[in-house]
Amino acid sequence: MNKVLITTVPFGQNDRAPIDLLESNGIAYTINPLNKKLTEDELLEMVSDVDVIIAGTEKITDKVMSKAKRLKMISRVGVGLDSVDLLSAQKRGIVVSYTPDAPAPAVAELTIGLMLALLRSIYVSNSEMHVGEWTRYYGRRLSEVTIGIIGCGRIGSRVMKHLNGFGNPKIMVNDIRVKFENDSTSNVEWAEKEEIYRCCDIVTIHLPLTVKTKNMIRKHHLLSMKSDAIIINTARGGIINESDLYQVLLSGHLGGAAIDVFDLEPYSGDLNKIDRCLLTAHMGSMSVDCRSKMEIQATKEAVHFLTGKPLEGLVPKEEYIDRRQGL
Amino acid sequence: MNKVLITTVPFGQNDRAPIDLLESNGIAYTINPLNKKLTEDELLEMVSDVDVIIAGTEKITDKVMSKAKRLKMISRVGVGLDSVDLLSAQKRGIVVSYTPDAPAPAVAELTIGLMLALLRSIYVSNSEMHVGEWTRYYGRRLSEVTIGIIGCGRIGSRVMKHLNGFGNPKIMVNDIRVKFENDSTSNVEWAEKEEIYRCCDIVTIHLPLTVKTKNMIRKHHLLSMKSDAIIINTARGGIINESDLYQVLLSGHLGGAAIDVFDLEPYSGDLNKIDRCLLTAHMGSMSVDCRSKMEIQATKEAVHFLTGKPLEGLVPKEEYIDRRQGL
Repeated sequence: MNKVLITTVPFGQNDRAPIDLLESNGIAYTINPLNKKLTEDELLEMVSDVDVIIAGTEKITDKVMSKAKRLKMISRVGVGLDSVDLLSAQKRGIVVSYTPDAPAPAVAELTIGLMLALLRSIYVSNSEMHVGEWTRYYGRRLSEVTIGIIGCGRIGSRVMKHLNGFGNPKIMVNDIRVKFENDSTSNVEWAEKEEIYRCCDIVTIHLPLTVKTKNMIRKHHLLSMKSDAIIINTARGGIINESDLYQVLLSGHLGGAAIDVFDLEPYSGDLNKIDRCLLTAHMGSMSVDCRSKMEIQATKEAVHFLTGKPLEGLVPKEEYIDRRQGL
Repeated sequence: MNKVLITTVPFGQNDRAPIDLLESNGIAYTINPLNKKLTEDELLEMVSDVDVIIAGTEKITDKVMSKAKRLKMISRVGVGLDSVDLLSAQKRGIVVSYTPDAPAPAVAELTIGLMLALLRSIYVSNSEMHVGEWTRYYGRRLSEVTIGIIGCGRIGSRVMKHLNGFGNPKIMVNDIRVKFENDSTSNVEWAEKEEIYRCCDIVTIHLPLTVKTKNMIRKHHLLSMKSDAIIINTARGGIINESDLYQVLLSGHLGGAAIDVFDLEPYSGDLNKIDRCLLTAHMGSMSVDCRSKMEIQATKEAVHFLTGKPLEGLVPKEEYIDRRQGL
């Protein structure tokens, strides 16, 4: 009998549909009993008799796959593929699917929320008010600042659309694949990353984690930003070097940061010592509707695989380029 | 020599232009030495030799005006007129000006920030992360909920515009003056207030405080809202009865609230015992650009008055209707 391991948590919590789908197809499943993102060692303990993993962002390494002798499919709940050693999966004939479109709306809205929370000191004032303090903080408006969007795919382009509802603020965009001619009548301008760091009041990252983007933003990039600029990462931990960000914030440079994703999750590192570093627990995709869509799509894909039906979310070939083991 | 009392704080802090304007016109001024919103008693101590007040939201009552024998003009930094006894001013020939347009952009953006902070538990997760806890909260997206806007003037209409950048979510609008025919192709629908309370996931208030709106939202209105609905007040304290809101939140009803304005400011009341009540310190207008505009406009108006030039921000006659002493 086929066995499915569901590692991503929470799962089926707001919407039982994916669980019902597995049960109605008579598929045996286990939901991650540790109820947290698994380490490689924890995952190694769970995979020996598993045919399909409905996966979160835990690392599915070559070592994990070599232990998972029966593994035939990985169905990722989400868009990021940094956690899966794609080349090892390919070598072993393990099929990999994902749900690239489902999380985008939720991540884009959270990003705007983080921008406004930082610009207007919402969380700072709230904490103070709850202990009886009253300080009226000056802030800045989205329509008065320049916003840099690095990565303008499914998520970045949505962030741009939302921002345009705030009176078309000045936006500078960089993307590896998309490059457009600048038009002086538009509020959106293509720019090199270095120019974005130097000129923008807010920089937000919407890239996958790959060998090209890992540690893409180091200390000297952060130091080249305006002293009161804000940096936001709702993409993947590791794109901004965490230790460098901590050092730079500690030194007093930058107006603030909002970080939703971390090298190691659950996160409990140094950034939590910095008050003006707004931290959230990898909640980008965590809207009820997007999360339900991701879970049901990934589960359908697993069921289709196990029942011999055609797959809809196969990871395209170009994603296998530039992948290396261990990322 | 004419004397100007500036009661609103902070003042001239990010932009010295209003102070320079007073000085270059040789006008003597005092900035509120208590550096907080003044009570009636505190204001009474300061007004006896004052010709013009550049005013915040402190109550300028009939009693204050009777003590301020030389007072000839009140120049409000902001749009709300609830703090000024307009009828008493009229009776005494005291001119009242205000800056009705300047704060709107900042208030509207803060309102969207508060919606997203509540919908996505940004401030909750941030607090937890800073003490090393990690919970991934489910949230909702703006484009998946129905939003009620009560009051669709300068601020409410901007909130609507920003919301439309989030994929035209369903919006229900009520306004005393504006009423439009519903068009089934639009995402915006005119509705009675009661229907808004009953049907919306988010209700946001953008009304002046008048005898008609004071205590407009009482316990039974709040209880008629959905159990997970959110209510936001960035308008004026007193429109939602504070004690009723506290009781209702305490009872477990409502998903949350965001309150920026209070009966008594600085605020240190019971709402700060409710974790899911997001509190900010009357920061609606507190963006650098809007605040500068408000301060310079109100100061210009005072200088124009004292130098015999025409005024541009005189409170229109219709604002004097429905005003009563003490509100």
